[in-house]
Amino acid sequence: MTQQHKQTCPIAGFLNIFGDHWTLLVVREAFYGATRFKDFQRNTGMARNLLSDRLAMLVGEEVLAKRDIGDRGTRFEYVLTNRGETLLPVLAAMNQWGNEHVFGSGKEPVLMIERATGKPIRPVQVLGESQDPLERRHIGARPGPGASPATVKRIESIDR
Amino acid sequence: MTQQHKQTCPIAGFLNIFGDHWTLLVVREAFYGATRFKDFQRNTGMARNLLSDRLAMLVGEEVLAKRDIGDRGTRFEYVLTNRGETLLPVLAAMNQWGNEHVFGSGKEPVLMIERATGKPIRPVQVLGESQDPLERRHIGARPGPGASPATVKRIESIDR
Repeated sequence: MTQQHKQTCPIAGFLNIFGDHWTLLVVREAFYGATRFKDFQRNTGMARNLLSDRLAMLVGEEVLAKRDIGDRGTRFEYVLTNRGETLLPVLAAMNQWGNEHVFGSGKEPVLMIERATGKPIRPVQVLGESQDPLERRHIGARPGPGASPATVKRIESIDR
Repeated sequence: MTQQHKQTCPIAGFLNIFGDHWTLLVVREAFYGATRFKDFQRNTGMARNLLSDRLAMLVGEEVLAKRDIGDRGTRFEYVLTNRGETLLPVLAAMNQWGNEHVFGSGKEPVLMIERATGKPIRPVQVLGESQDPLERRHIGARPGPGASPATVKRIESIDR
């Protein structure tokens, strides 16, 4: 997976880390509170080698931190870093899209709830300056300061 | 990719459709306004066969609709359906995470902007009942009405 996409594009950059469908299941479990290898394994159904590989990648990317919680390096836990915790809007938006569009109303398998109230969290929205929810037609893309010439050309070719 | 994950989990359900890193690049281009095969191809750098396959899958999943815009079925365009448009929070959250955590401040390659103002959109957040931004520690998971017994067990095993 690493560095598969060469484009200077934040979505491509995201997918170079998380564009493997197993990787986001590992992150999902970390968000739900899993810290131990056996919990990640049981709850994702991943083979040991595959899980080891993805955990090591996520530690390398500083999404998870590996902590020694044993005496002689025999027990470890994996916890979200600050960088990992900032994936919350991505995961919440995926959770809500899957509930609504894959399973449907009344058939939601897993709800994210606000601990303080026990109620499902609000739909994640993209808000404009006036705090109104924005839709795709309200939104455009423009090259940022880190855009390569190819990315500038790509964005300009479609966004007119 | 199809139905790779059997768990009743909305994130797994999402990843059964989008867990392939090329698929989300195709969706990205649709969000940026691409409609023609050649534009998708040029802007993602995908091989024709791979792109044809992913476009057909996205049409099958009703994320994109294929429209005949020619005389004899020789020219087509691909446009986001309503279901596809509701991916906006996922894509916006990925865009922002990639800008901030893969490229970094001052090196953002592509910014999503509000057309009305030309300014970058606000950070996508998960808001609580009182409209305050929530962090992971404020959020839990609970089985929804469509959870399988295995999913109930999985959620209960970690969320305590």
